[in-house]
Amino acid sequence: MPKKIRLGIIGGGGDSLIGVLHRVASFINDNYEIVGAVFNPNFEQNLAFAKQIDVATNRIYKDFDTLIAEELKLPPEERIQVCSVLTPNFLHFPMAKKLLDNGFHVICEKPMTTTLEEAKLLEAAHKKSGTVFALTHTYTGYPMVRQMREMIKAGELGKIHKVDARYYQGWINPVIHDPEQRSKVWRLDPKKAGISSCIGDIGVHAFNMVEYTTGLEIKSILSDFNYLYDDNQMDVDGTVLIRMGKHVKGVIRSSQVATGEENGLAISIYGEKAALRWEQERPNFLYKISDTGPTEVYKPGHAYNSALSLDGTKLPPGHPEGIFDAMANIYLGVARAIRGEDYNDGEFPTMRDGVRGLNFIEATVASHKGGNVWIDLE
Amino acid sequence: MPKKIRLGIIGGGGDSLIGVLHRVASFINDNYEIVGAVFNPNFEQNLAFAKQIDVATNRIYKDFDTLIAEELKLPPEERIQVCSVLTPNFLHFPMAKKLLDNGFHVICEKPMTTTLEEAKLLEAAHKKSGTVFALTHTYTGYPMVRQMREMIKAGELGKIHKVDARYYQGWINPVIHDPEQRSKVWRLDPKKAGISSCIGDIGVHAFNMVEYTTGLEIKSILSDFNYLYDDNQMDVDGTVLIRMGKHVKGVIRSSQVATGEENGLAISIYGEKAALRWEQERPNFLYKISDTGPTEVYKPGHAYNSALSLDGTKLPPGHPEGIFDAMANIYLGVARAIRGEDYNDGEFPTMRDGVRGLNFIEATVASHKGGNVWIDLE
Amino acid sequence: MPKKIRLGIIGGGGDSLIGVLHRVASFINDNYEIVGAVFNPNFEQNLAFAKQIDVATNRIYKDFDTLIAEELKLPPEERIQVCSVLTPNFLHFPMAKKLLDNGFHVICEKPMTTTLEEAKLLEAAHKKSGTVFALTHTYTGYPMVRQMREMIKAGELGKIHKVDARYYQGWINPVIHDPEQRSKVWRLDPKKAGISSCIGDIGVHAFNMVEYTTGLEIKSILSDFNYLYDDNQMDVDGTVLIRMGKHVKGVIRSSQVATGEENGLAISIYGEKAALRWEQERPNFLYKISDTGPTEVYKPGHAYNSALSLDGTKLPPGHPEGIFDAMANIYLGVARAIRGEDYNDGEFPTMRDGVRGLNFIEATVASHKGGNVWIDLE
Amino acid sequence: MPKKIRLGIIGGGGDSLIGVLHRVASFINDNYEIVGAVFNPNFEQNLAFAKQIDVATNRIYKDFDTLIAEELKLPPEERIQVCSVLTPNFLHFPMAKKLLDNGFHVICEKPMTTTLEEAKLLEAAHKKSGTVFALTHTYTGYPMVRQMREMIKAGELGKIHKVDARYYQGWINPVIHDPEQRSKVWRLDPKKAGISSCIGDIGVHAFNMVEYTTGLEIKSILSDFNYLYDDNQMDVDGTVLIRMGKHVKGVIRSSQVATGEENGLAISIYGEKAALRWEQERPNFLYKISDTGPTEVYKPGHAYNSALSLDGTKLPPGHPEGIFDAMANIYLGVARAIRGEDYNDGEFPTMRDGVRGLNFIEATVASHKGGNVWIDLE
Repeated sequence: MPKKIRLGIIGGGGDSLIGVLHRVASFINDNYEIVGAVFNPNFEQNLAFAKQIDVATNRIYKDFDTLIAEELKLPPEERIQVCSVLTPNFLHFPMAKKLLDNGFHVICEKPMTTTLEEAKLLEAAHKKSGTVFALTHTYTGYPMVRQMREMIKAGELGKIHKVDARYYQGWINPVIHDPEQRSKVWRLDPKKAGISSCIGDIGVHAFNMVEYTTGLEIKSILSDFNYLYDDNQMDVDGTVLIRMGKHVKGVIRSSQVATGEENGLAISIYGEKAALRWEQERPNFLYKISDTGPTEVYKPGHAYNSALSLDGTKLPPGHPEGIFDAMANIYLGVARAIRGEDYNDGEFPTMRDGVRGLNFIEATVASHKGGNVWIDLE
Repeated sequence: MPKKIRLGIIGGGGDSLIGVLHRVASFINDNYEIVGAVFNPNFEQNLAFAKQIDVATNRIYKDFDTLIAEELKLPPEERIQVCSVLTPNFLHFPMAKKLLDNGFHVICEKPMTTTLEEAKLLEAAHKKSGTVFALTHTYTGYPMVRQMREMIKAGELGKIHKVDARYYQGWINPVIHDPEQRSKVWRLDPKKAGISSCIGDIGVHAFNMVEYTTGLEIKSILSDFNYLYDDNQMDVDGTVLIRMGKHVKGVIRSSQVATGEENGLAISIYGEKAALRWEQERPNFLYKISDTGPTEVYKPGHAYNSALSLDGTKLPPGHPEGIFDAMANIYLGVARAIRGEDYNDGEFPTMRDGVRGLNFIEATVASHKGGNVWIDLE
Repeated sequence: MPKKIRLGIIGGGGDSLIGVLHRVASFINDNYEIVGAVFNPNFEQNLAFAKQIDVATNRIYKDFDTLIAEELKLPPEERIQVCSVLTPNFLHFPMAKKLLDNGFHVICEKPMTTTLEEAKLLEAAHKKSGTVFALTHTYTGYPMVRQMREMIKAGELGKIHKVDARYYQGWINPVIHDPEQRSKVWRLDPKKAGISSCIGDIGVHAFNMVEYTTGLEIKSILSDFNYLYDDNQMDVDGTVLIRMGKHVKGVIRSSQVATGEENGLAISIYGEKAALRWEQERPNFLYKISDTGPTEVYKPGHAYNSALSLDGTKLPPGHPEGIFDAMANIYLGVARAIRGEDYNDGEFPTMRDGVRGLNFIEATVASHKGGNVWIDLE
Repeated sequence: MPKKIRLGIIGGGGDSLIGVLHRVASFINDNYEIVGAVFNPNFEQNLAFAKQIDVATNRIYKDFDTLIAEELKLPPEERIQVCSVLTPNFLHFPMAKKLLDNGFHVICEKPMTTTLEEAKLLEAAHKKSGTVFALTHTYTGYPMVRQMREMIKAGELGKIHKVDARYYQGWINPVIHDPEQRSKVWRLDPKKAGISSCIGDIGVHAFNMVEYTTGLEIKSILSDFNYLYDDNQMDVDGTVLIRMGKHVKGVIRSSQVATGEENGLAISIYGEKAALRWEQERPNFLYKISDTGPTEVYKPGHAYNSALSLDGTKLPPGHPEGIFDAMANIYLGVARAIRGEDYNDGEFPTMRDGVRGLNFIEATVASHKGGNVWIDLE
């Protein structure tokens, strides 16, 4: 294996949780070295954080534009190869675009952009750049999610005729029920948070999980949102009817007011021959059920799993790996792509997932606002 | 406790599963004695079955009308007091109505009738009769379902703002995927099976569970059915968006093509303060979750349960009771009502549940056929 | 099927839980009719209870001896055929023996007797009587316990080399920790309760489960009891090392001070090829694990189950049956045996199970008192 | 936070799983930098591995003694501060001792040594060195294991009277059942693997878990091993009766022939007031049961957890962390100790755990060989 890939990080400083997740993920498989960063818009905090995590400060820049400008002055063999974009949502698009335009590989947090229009512009920029672009729908990095994808691809379920996915959380409860908080928090302010809260933040994970695992495209949707209070302008709960073909239907359910739920992402996929069920909070157990035989419980690391799944497990069966390991699997796939090595297209979500996601988010808003009508995805 | 109640049974002979369920349920609490019956339309089989289960044959009648006529000739203290109606669906209405019109108490299998119009006629007959009428939504007899109802009534969840219920089965798969079978089987023939397969048979259980546990009324619905094949005329899968108030929403999901699912009835109810989750196939475990404390798992028979729940448990905690015991709890409530004893209105589903159920079924069909539009329930 | 079997009941009146369990079990499959009884030693309460559960009072006797004497005067075709013995433990032996000596079939609650010596005398009486004798180790009536037995018999695990069974309860906690209560309660008084509390009451269930499911005999044991307080004379907790062959070993764990446990009976059986795991409180889920393939979860009622298992399920898969249904399965087997019909020897526990159980109980006491030494079973 | 701690690694090169686990764990909290190593006894492979994982090769040494000698030549502020010892078991003692004798901090894989005598010598060396010594009983790093420790310390269970722990695996099955393999594999050769296979490798984890969580000391033990075949000299299964006080008893069960089990470490701790249950393969769920209230399920990251537990969780509730994160928690505690910061003594297992473990292993072997007699621990 060649030398470590030179990684730059934008955002993710201080107490940022997403920062920890990406940083650890980059370390896990010995593939990356952080060589440059703008961890924080405040330069002093930026430098302090770099010192705290023991990153050399000579390439800690005062802002994103400076990072680009200075790195481009370095010879290619020293320059940052790939940048992880962990900034607030509205910055994903301009930063990712500029990175692509300047020949950098990009690992981008979701949502990829705040509008479908931006997403398409980014897609165009990516086509021109020819670099690697990965979108961190982290959950696709779990070994048993990969196993679902491969089992379905191999035909183990037969023709799929129904899909049911959900992402339930209760975290917004303390905010939404308090009139003052719900009027002030940026998450519920459409000017700051974009067009959707619940679908945009978590519903889109369920959407992505459906398309990632089944290999099917959702063709059209009908959504119903719940704002919970008249003075609240953002969806905090939404149910979406989905159609993936003439007789292939399903539902995506998402909520931020599902009291007591944590990261309740789950999916059930029903085919002619069998079905699969998986839950994010018990990520190492995959259930295959059928009308005839006993339920089968698949676990990571066993030889009976697919190559794609096994590639995402570092230890023998029975040693639980978790969300950091899932993200590390995505980083591993990106490393292979950057190095030009072979990799499976299930190793990391791509530009296409990002465009699809924005298309979905905008469609659900349009459907709800249009009076719960069917909207086609592009 | 007074003498056993004199029970008549219509239908449920031979290999009838529903027959076993009702018969056993009637025995469990020592309240009923079968004194008369028309187990089977064929009189010889009727008699043979009575002998097989050791019921005296002198009041085994050749048909339903004869049963009514002959029983009315008996003095009231010998006459059948209550009749269980276990016949094919289309016979529920005429039989239940005639029983009520002639002063009998009635225990009726669901669906109560095949149309809302019939349901209302039956309701009117019941108002006139003044006798007891129970509809066997069996699942409401489980101790932990009763516990949900009482916890919600006591305000433990606070204001409810979201409900999610499902009933998934896979049993119709072998039928629906075979062109010959799906064109022939009576369950998928609208002339024989009524207007709905999936919603009528199981979706309505989920609907009833929502209203039974929350005490809320579903005001309007929007449904999307799946017929799976162009030549199939009956819904085998349906998702229903529901609204119980301006900002109280939810979803009811039902399927008969959810491969590998058995009797996958489940409900999650989210309130401001806490939530409850329950699954039919693990009926003795009730989960209360909140955003702050540890998840709580309630089990039957403990002193911490409500009186209504405890009334439905015969043995100390840790002895699993099941579906027969749930039905027996309904029979126990009916016995109390017949005897004029005090009982909790959660002890058995009533005429009102039946009317609501038919209203729901017809509304979902109308919504789907109308292009997935919102339909108000009455 | 012939007429109902004439059942007599000794004990089980009033609030007796075991009384409800047996009575309901006898009804469930339409095989028995209660024709005579001594529900209670107090004759008035006895009669009152009979009326309460609507059993004719003409054959409600003032005591056990009268029951025997009077029933023998009746012609055989009217006489009680089988008696269920539900009295306090020390009465099981004399009553069961007298019943057998007089040609009655017997269904006996466990423990069969209070000593091994009695057990052997009863065994001799049974050999002479030639009637049916069943011991109600109720848990063997669960469909998935039967399934374990049949899978093991069919060789699905290969040679068994390890067994681990437990029965944990916490019920005695409030009693044992209170000096006054523990000195007074009959359950902890060796003069009244026999030589063992924990092993005698529940450990023996785990013992029976091991021998029932594996078909192996436990050859020798070494036990260590916990009395918890110096002034307590009865075991409230005991762990037993077991050997079933030179290299076939295991452990039986039982406790009545396992705080928070209810009826925590569970068993794991490890063979060369696979293993089985089952828990009483989730009786409808049987886990088959192996070193190579996915875990398999078996559930009742599926065609993939053995005939013995399927015989114990009344409804299709997904309708949970429970402890009453398990006991009913035992009563069904006894009915077949009484009628001289074919039955599988796994349908009900027998005299042999009773003798083995007493042998085990006495051996564990001897081992503990002897300083935790190995004791051979006979 | 100061600069990263300079970490040396001995062993763990190539495909070593334990190598990955330690390396990743050292990265996760930004505390360590690998500055020197002997990954492999073969110097070329050693260098190649360093290059593969992008560690500078200037301090990759040809053997352990060279590492010590050369590092001691470096000024203290450049020198390796702590060494992780990941070599074969018999090398743990001499290497750890030499490291301590030369003033290095040590992170040592378990078993700490191969004999109790060595363990005591190491303990003496450690007392003299005054450096930090940590033993990687990794499972103690799970947030919910730490939560058990703190809940028990806070008296939530009351006086503990029973403990039941197990560690079941099936991995040795393919080896043990093949006469040729079992005679050849080093794991079953006492000359190479030490005095115990099953207890030494995994039973000791269960032992440590008991002492870590309860804060109690096991006073005496009685063990029974299973070798499975006459020609096999190493225990592959062992059950151990334990006593922690006059009336405080329990059992430790371990097996490498528990077919189908993976890393089946589990513990149940029963106190006067409540009990705790936890399983390694579902590490993020901790069950608190009592005789009176509902079961409580604790999950990581919630404010209701103890400080020690919360310190071990990086993300909000509902993001599963796993075994790598558990080991990282141990590395974090060691980093604090090295830096002289405050830390809780539950943050990493110590020399004392190592001495206790060897004492336990030797006692179980003595007990079994002595005919299953009680042996006191020191």
